Amino acid sequence: MYLYLIRHGIAADSDPLALDSIASDELRPLTKIGRKKVEQVADKLTRLDLKFDLIMTSPLVRAQQTADIYMDRQISPKLEVNQDLKPSGSLQSWLTAWHARSTADSFSTLAVIGHEPNLSEWAELLLFDQVYHQLILKKGGIIGLKFPEQRIEISMAQLYCLIPPKILLSGG
Amino acid sequence: MYLYLIRHGIAADSDPLALDSIASDELRPLTKIGRKKVEQVADKLTRLDLKFDLIMTSPLVRAQQTADIYMDRQISPKLEVNQDLKPSGSLQSWLTAWHARSTADSFSTLAVIGHEPNLSEWAELLLFDQVYHQLILKKGGIIGLKFPEQRIEISMAQLYCLIPPKILLSGG
Repeated sequence: MYLYLIRHGIAADSDPLALDSIASDELRPLTKIGRKKVEQVADKLTRLDLKFDLIMTSPLVRAQQTADIYMDRQISPKLEVNQDLKPSGSLQSWLTAWHARSTADSFSTLAVIGHEPNLSEWAELLLFDQVYHQLILKKGGIIGLKFPEQRIEISMAQLYCLIPPKILLSGG
Repeated sequence: MYLYLIRHGIAADSDPLALDSIASDELRPLTKIGRKKVEQVADKLTRLDLKFDLIMTSPLVRAQQTADIYMDRQISPKLEVNQDLKPSGSLQSWLTAWHARSTADSFSTLAVIGHEPNLSEWAELLLFDQVYHQLILKKGGIIGLKFPEQRIEISMAQLYCLIPPKILLSGG
């Protein structure tokens, strides 16, 4: 199966005067340019006929807005908000929940939308069972992992693609 | 600096009746489809304004033909054939020669065109100093490594992109 790790697009800065800095971070929306880049990436993936069985997104506004852009293009029939995809979430917790639920449904292509450094760390754990911090995942970028079995497991992934959004942007 | 590892395009099968199977392998040309896919990838990189200071290619026909397609688009001012990029070549040998010569010239973007499993193994060594065989490099595909310094060193790379050619093909 394929797992796509998608980083949210470029977002506005936090309000420096906010009393609650975590809440303020959670509310940061995509900027106009951030939205446009995600739209271009999603358009390109649509033309390549990529489909996801499910998109799971971090509850943070910038991630949900990124997910909505994908959903608008009907790349996935289903969107779920997942707390483990927050910046404070952990792969182990997400993986446990995923294994519990994925026995019920069958998925062959899953996308998760979240944050750095989480997503590139998760990718390294799924690939090598080790965190190197050597994968560069830009905002709006995508890491594609392939699992030989139907199951997502640590150190069982192969790296299928790592795509900076620039590569997919206009210019044909 | 950036190092792009580019795998040759799809090539014809070896002549099964050849007396010298190594020589026969060395002569395998790109197929029509292989050539077309490499052309589309090179066209896309041209539109993205990617330039190399130098392309080094394996001497095998399918690699040299891949290099020629890039050279035709003037992506690089210079092409060199390098024996260490043959399937029998080693990273250590290539790296020693490269360090000897790169003190003379200054390069910021280098492309090498070669074979699997060499290129993805070289990438893993440059990233992690370990070979996992977990990077999937398709024919015509590209691995992009970024080095924080001007020098190419084992375990100093960051993975900037891994691009299956399909991602860059037509469809805009």
